[in-house]
Amino acid sequence: MFLTRTEYDRGVNTFSPEGRLFQVEYAIEAIKLGSTAIGLKTKEGVVLAVEKRITSPLLEPSSVEKIMEIDEHIGCAMSGLIADARTLVEHARVETQNHRFSYGEPMTVESTTQALCDLALRFGEGDEESMSRPFGVSLLIAGHDENGPSLYYTDPSGTFWQCNGKAIGSGSEGADSSLQEQYNKDLTLQEAETIALSILKQVMEEKVTPNNVDFAKVAPTYHLYTPSEVEAVISRL
Amino acid sequence: MFLTRTEYDRGVNTFSPEGRLFQVEYAIEAIKLGSTAIGLKTKEGVVLAVEKRITSPLLEPSSVEKIMEIDEHIGCAMSGLIADARTLVEHARVETQNHRFSYGEPMTVESTTQALCDLALRFGEGDEESMSRPFGVSLLIAGHDENGPSLYYTDPSGTFWQCNGKAIGSGSEGADSSLQEQYNKDLTLQEAETIALSILKQVMEEKVTPNNVDFAKVAPTYHLYTPSEVEAVISRL
Amino acid sequence: MFLTRTEYDRGVNTFSPEGRLFQVEYAIEAIKLGSTAIGLKTKEGVVLAVEKRITSPLLEPSSVEKIMEIDEHIGCAMSGLIADARTLVEHARVETQNHRFSYGEPMTVESTTQALCDLALRFGEGDEESMSRPFGVSLLIAGHDENGPSLYYTDPSGTFWQCNGKAIGSGSEGADSSLQEQYNKDLTLQEAETIALSILKQVMEEKVTPNNVDFAKVAPTYHLYTPSEVEAVISRL
Amino acid sequence: MFLTRTEYDRGVNTFSPEGRLFQVEYAIEAIKLGSTAIGLKTKEGVVLAVEKRITSPLLEPSSVEKIMEIDEHIGCAMSGLIADARTLVEHARVETQNHRFSYGEPMTVESTTQALCDLALRFGEGDEESMSRPFGVSLLIAGHDENGPSLYYTDPSGTFWQCNGKAIGSGSEGADSSLQEQYNKDLTLQEAETIALSILKQVMEEKVTPNNVDFAKVAPTYHLYTPSEVEAVISRL
Amino acid sequence: MFLTRTEYDRGVNTFSPEGRLFQVEYAIEAIKLGSTAIGLKTKEGVVLAVEKRITSPLLEPSSVEKIMEIDEHIGCAMSGLIADARTLVEHARVETQNHRFSYGEPMTVESTTQALCDLALRFGEGDEESMSRPFGVSLLIAGHDENGPSLYYTDPSGTFWQCNGKAIGSGSEGADSSLQEQYNKDLTLQEAETIALSILKQVMEEKVTPNNVDFAKVAPTYHLYTPSEVEAVISRL
Amino acid sequence: MFLTRTEYDRGVNTFSPEGRLFQVEYAIEAIKLGSTAIGLKTKEGVVLAVEKRITSPLLEPSSVEKIMEIDEHIGCAMSGLIADARTLVEHARVETQNHRFSYGEPMTVESTTQALCDLALRFGEGDEESMSRPFGVSLLIAGHDENGPSLYYTDPSGTFWQCNGKAIGSGSEGADSSLQEQYNKDLTLQEAETIALSILKQVMEEKVTPNNVDFAKVAPTYHLYTPSEVEAVISRL
Amino acid sequence: MFLTRTEYDRGVNTFSPEGRLFQVEYAIEAIKLGSTAIGLKTKEGVVLAVEKRITSPLLEPSSVEKIMEIDEHIGCAMSGLIADARTLVEHARVETQNHRFSYGEPMTVESTTQALCDLALRFGEGDEESMSRPFGVSLLIAGHDENGPSLYYTDPSGTFWQCNGKAIGSGSEGADSSLQEQYNKDLTLQEAETIALSILKQVMEEKVTPNNVDFAKVAPTYHLYTPSEVEAVISRL
Repeated sequence: MFLTRTEYDRGVNTFSPEGRLFQVEYAIEAIKLGSTAIGLKTKEGVVLAVEKRITSPLLEPSSVEKIMEIDEHIGCAMSGLIADARTLVEHARVETQNHRFSYGEPMTVESTTQALCDLALRFGEGDEESMSRPFGVSLLIAGHDENGPSLYYTDPSGTFWQCNGKAIGSGSEGADSSLQEQYNKDLTLQEAETIALSILKQVMEEKVTPNNVDFAKVAPTYHLYTPSEVEAVISRL
Repeated sequence: MFLTRTEYDRGVNTFSPEGRLFQVEYAIEAIKLGSTAIGLKTKEGVVLAVEKRITSPLLEPSSVEKIMEIDEHIGCAMSGLIADARTLVEHARVETQNHRFSYGEPMTVESTTQALCDLALRFGEGDEESMSRPFGVSLLIAGHDENGPSLYYTDPSGTFWQCNGKAIGSGSEGADSSLQEQYNKDLTLQEAETIALSILKQVMEEKVTPNNVDFAKVAPTYHLYTPSEVEAVISRL
Repeated sequence: MFLTRTEYDRGVNTFSPEGRLFQVEYAIEAIKLGSTAIGLKTKEGVVLAVEKRITSPLLEPSSVEKIMEIDEHIGCAMSGLIADARTLVEHARVETQNHRFSYGEPMTVESTTQALCDLALRFGEGDEESMSRPFGVSLLIAGHDENGPSLYYTDPSGTFWQCNGKAIGSGSEGADSSLQEQYNKDLTLQEAETIALSILKQVMEEKVTPNNVDFAKVAPTYHLYTPSEVEAVISRL
Repeated sequence: MFLTRTEYDRGVNTFSPEGRLFQVEYAIEAIKLGSTAIGLKTKEGVVLAVEKRITSPLLEPSSVEKIMEIDEHIGCAMSGLIADARTLVEHARVETQNHRFSYGEPMTVESTTQALCDLALRFGEGDEESMSRPFGVSLLIAGHDENGPSLYYTDPSGTFWQCNGKAIGSGSEGADSSLQEQYNKDLTLQEAETIALSILKQVMEEKVTPNNVDFAKVAPTYHLYTPSEVEAVISRL
Repeated sequence: MFLTRTEYDRGVNTFSPEGRLFQVEYAIEAIKLGSTAIGLKTKEGVVLAVEKRITSPLLEPSSVEKIMEIDEHIGCAMSGLIADARTLVEHARVETQNHRFSYGEPMTVESTTQALCDLALRFGEGDEESMSRPFGVSLLIAGHDENGPSLYYTDPSGTFWQCNGKAIGSGSEGADSSLQEQYNKDLTLQEAETIALSILKQVMEEKVTPNNVDFAKVAPTYHLYTPSEVEAVISRL
Repeated sequence: MFLTRTEYDRGVNTFSPEGRLFQVEYAIEAIKLGSTAIGLKTKEGVVLAVEKRITSPLLEPSSVEKIMEIDEHIGCAMSGLIADARTLVEHARVETQNHRFSYGEPMTVESTTQALCDLALRFGEGDEESMSRPFGVSLLIAGHDENGPSLYYTDPSGTFWQCNGKAIGSGSEGADSSLQEQYNKDLTLQEAETIALSILKQVMEEKVTPNNVDFAKVAPTYHLYTPSEVEAVISRL
Repeated sequence: MFLTRTEYDRGVNTFSPEGRLFQVEYAIEAIKLGSTAIGLKTKEGVVLAVEKRITSPLLEPSSVEKIMEIDEHIGCAMSGLIADARTLVEHARVETQNHRFSYGEPMTVESTTQALCDLALRFGEGDEESMSRPFGVSLLIAGHDENGPSLYYTDPSGTFWQCNGKAIGSGSEGADSSLQEQYNKDLTLQEAETIALSILKQVMEEKVTPNNVDFAKVAPTYHLYTPSEVEAVISRL
């Protein structure tokens, strides 16, 4: 059966007889190899937590960025190919800046997410900014706009969903179950911090330290936690 | 026999010896994997109902949009690849806005449908807006113009048909039979609401709730039902 | 032998060792799958009759257009891929309008046919308007100009012939024989109407009704028959 | 051995190990499937005669053009793909008109032939006017200029030869032998008419009639014979 | 298993079913064939040391450049395909010069590294400056800016990391272990020189001489050691 | 072994593992199928002699041109694909005319040859004038400039050599040996005429006549021999 | 094992699993088939000596150029595909002329070499001047600038090295050993002449004559030896 599949799965943008786009499905596999990221929304704001794989003690942990700011009211956590994520984030930064310049107000979180997905969808089309293959990355986009806090999840097919909590990456299956169990709509931001980190701890092979975790919130502006702030959350577990 | 077929079906736009375009047929398969959508026309207006697959309780149902507004007098329900549908809808929105701007009047529903199909037909041609593969989506386009209410159905080959009722997606076969049994040209809009939702209920595996169904009407303007309006239709079943 | 053929037939525009262009031959196969269309020329004008396959009682018959106007003195019937036919007809409409604008007189039927075939011939050439594969459609072009009434037949290779009567599509073989038996050059337009419809009736599996037949004449201007006009012809059979 | 050949013959413009260009050779095969055409030069002018295959009695014989005028002093007969021939002839018509406009005198027959072959040679080069495959047609170009009457023969490789008599198409082998036997340089134009048609008659399966033969002369201007003029030649056989 | 892999690994930018990009992984292999390079950061500055393979005594050692200046405050050591490295360095030089010209101040080390990786990431995209394959080179980028000294490491996927010490090339595995053992954050620049060269000595097959080693520091400006300066470090081992 | 070769020989411009360019080698094979051409240089000038294959008595021998004038002081004989040779000669004619126009003096024979080879070398590069395959032709270029008479030989790889005598085409091997035996640097032009034709006679299967041989000299201007001039040389054999 | 290799070696610019670029390696093989060239640097200047393969006594030895002038202070010897070398040399000539024109001073030898390698590296990139395959040639570039005499060696990968002596081509292995034995940094130019030619003599199958050797020096300007100057060096052996 695998043999038959190979007939269709190398054309970057070709349907198989069952109507599937294999290159997109394979890009989704790339994310299953990535480090685990968790997003959790509360009424007060959204928290993002991501595992960082520090392969050498000589590596500077802060240079392994798994959470990045898009605009002052939007941040995103990523899992998959980091270089691909950077291209998407850079694109979103330009879009949000242009929006501020043209309209004198921040871009909504949904429009920003849509702009990212428009770029992701057009792989294989030979456009100037698009790539010749799907972007091998999933994003958790946390933001706060006139509609309050929101959390979006994107995948390599260019599709996005809004959600209250979501895990991506190698440990996403277990983490998603835990999120569904522990989530309720009246969580405080502090409770969300504790839940996100405790779930991340469960799926990580190593002990959680300020060095191997990126932690951020958008409440209502983006803030990346300092090592001591991460340490404070760890101490509450 | 399958082996012989594979000789022809990967070229995006190549005829097989029997005169078939396999990539289009495979894209049609993608739609058979999609959620079921139903459109039903009455003299008072058109109703659209689509199943939404909510894979996680943490997913925000309203962010899974299966019915979208094109212009104030046109809406569309979709089945298949959602990201592809968004590209088509975005194209139609620009076309209808341009038409209003240039001619000072709304674009007819047929012209809007034709504009969508022109884009869909030109896959593989390397145009700026077209894709390198067929669009993997079918649309039910509901509208109201000087000719009264109308319902169109499009498929990935760029062909469209006008109809009084039509179902697309994974449950379309059974739903189409039910539509033909229950349709008559004197239906009121309220009767159409009930029929559309009762048929959708039959083909859905889960219980129908305001969360897992999108419902809209064009009578004579586009209106997406609020959860409580959907609840009201459900209660009439 | 089929195996050997496959070595040559996927290149869109490549000769086989016997000097054949298989993609064109396969496109011609696409037409053999299409609905039957008949054209018949008399001294008074030309009639066109096409079968319409109405797959569902909820389909609006008038939205399945198998005969279209090109200019007020030219109409065409089609068999094969309808979306391809629309592209060709749209091209011909622009050409005839441009001709009227530039020269202040209608384009001749032959020039219009030639313009259509020029576009059809250039498939695979990467031109702006041409396609990457042959157009999968045959046309019967009926017109009336300074040389009186005329009927042309085109195929996917970009070749055209003038004729007095011609059938295309799945029932073309039988219909062509009947046309040759019943044709004489002194037919009146009314006799031609009767012959065209009676032959179409023979090759159709269903009963002929105003819903499943398109009927038109160019005598000397294009006129698509209303359902009651079609009914009148049916009643004469 | 055929197997080995297929390794080289699908690239449109690639040498085989023996230094052959197979796509050109296959295009030449396309001509061997075509109808027979004959050209014969005398001191008084050149005659062209071509078989027309009228597949249906309803086909208008005059619309099957196998001999076309290029300029008033040049005509050409064709065998092979008619749509390809039309493209070449159209190109030659533009070239000769441009020459008349620029230099105030007719283009010579050799220059016109050279212009046709320049276009034919550049297949597969991606030029604006050239095709992605060889032109599947041979031409017999008859003309009259300051050097008197002349007859040229072109093939799909873009090569041309001047000759006193030449046959192309499916019956060319037998017809060429007959031409060599019956040719002498003192033939009158009337004798040439008779010889050309009598040879064409030998290789045609059907009886020769004004309907299934195209006949023309350039002496010194191009003239396509009317049915009655063809009838007159037939009656002399 | 190797057989299955070959189905995916030749497309320059195509995902395998496991979500891997083989051409990037193979480019990384190219670096494992390269000569060993070592970078080490101290509070006083950064040192770079690279092995040079002098294949002939007639080769001019100084013409084998394995460490190059990017700007006066940034230098880089390379391992892998030298011609590819030159293209990247040339690109970085233009970027840093443009930055100085536009903003009147030096470009930060991180921005310079990011600019290099942007170019590296876009292989296979047909851009003007990008290549059709991944760049087969890893860089150690040493610099000094307003944030003090820093050391970055890039790989062919366009990803980069900041680190305190890092080895690349054929001997990187052993050299990385030694670096981790001997590194502490209070090293003086002179101690770093000694450590870098002693580790390089361990992994080189030949005796270390000023001829077969490139040595540089950025403290705070770039300086490539002269043979006698290298000799001085060697004498301290 | 042949099987292994086929892995490399269809890419128009790809090296085999042994460093060979097979498409160029195959183009050279095309020349071995061509008619034999001979060039011979004396102090008084250069003579060119080429076999012409007259396949039919009705073919006009003078229209089979195997020797063509480039400029009044340069002519060339060809073997291989005649249509390719015409493109090269046309290119050279434009170059030499441009040179005369720009500099007011004739282009040297070497520069002309270089210009031809520049075009030949760039096959497969997608330039405007270059071809997608090697030119399948060899040329013998005879000329006379400020350095006296000269003879050049070009092959499909774009390489050229200057020589005193050279044979190309199907009989080149035997003809080259004969040339080496009979050449001495004190030959008169008349002796060279006799030698060239006598050698050509040896390798031709048919009797030499003014009809099946092209003969020219550049001494110091280009002159193509008339049939009677050729007859005169024949009579001296 | 060879079978596995063929999976990767036809893509002009694709990494194999071991990180190798086979097309570059195969181009290097092309040079091993080439004639031997030797370069030798002294304090007084650089000498270049190349074998010329004169395949026929009728070939003009001076037209087989294996050493060419780039600028008055730079010359180069070549081994491999001569037509490729000409393209590179022509490119270098334009670069050095432009440099003189823009800056009023000669281009340095290293910059000239770098410019050549920039062009060589970008094969397969579709640039205007670059080729679709690696250049199949190695160069020995001898020059003299403000830094005194220098000798560079380039290969098809676009890499270059500076050296005191170097041999390339079919006899390079033995010649390199001899060079290393006989080189010392105090050689006079005359001694270098003798060494270069004696080593060339060893690796050539034929007797060395002024006809089958090209000899040049840059000391400090480029000078190609006349036959009698070569004869003088031969007589010293």
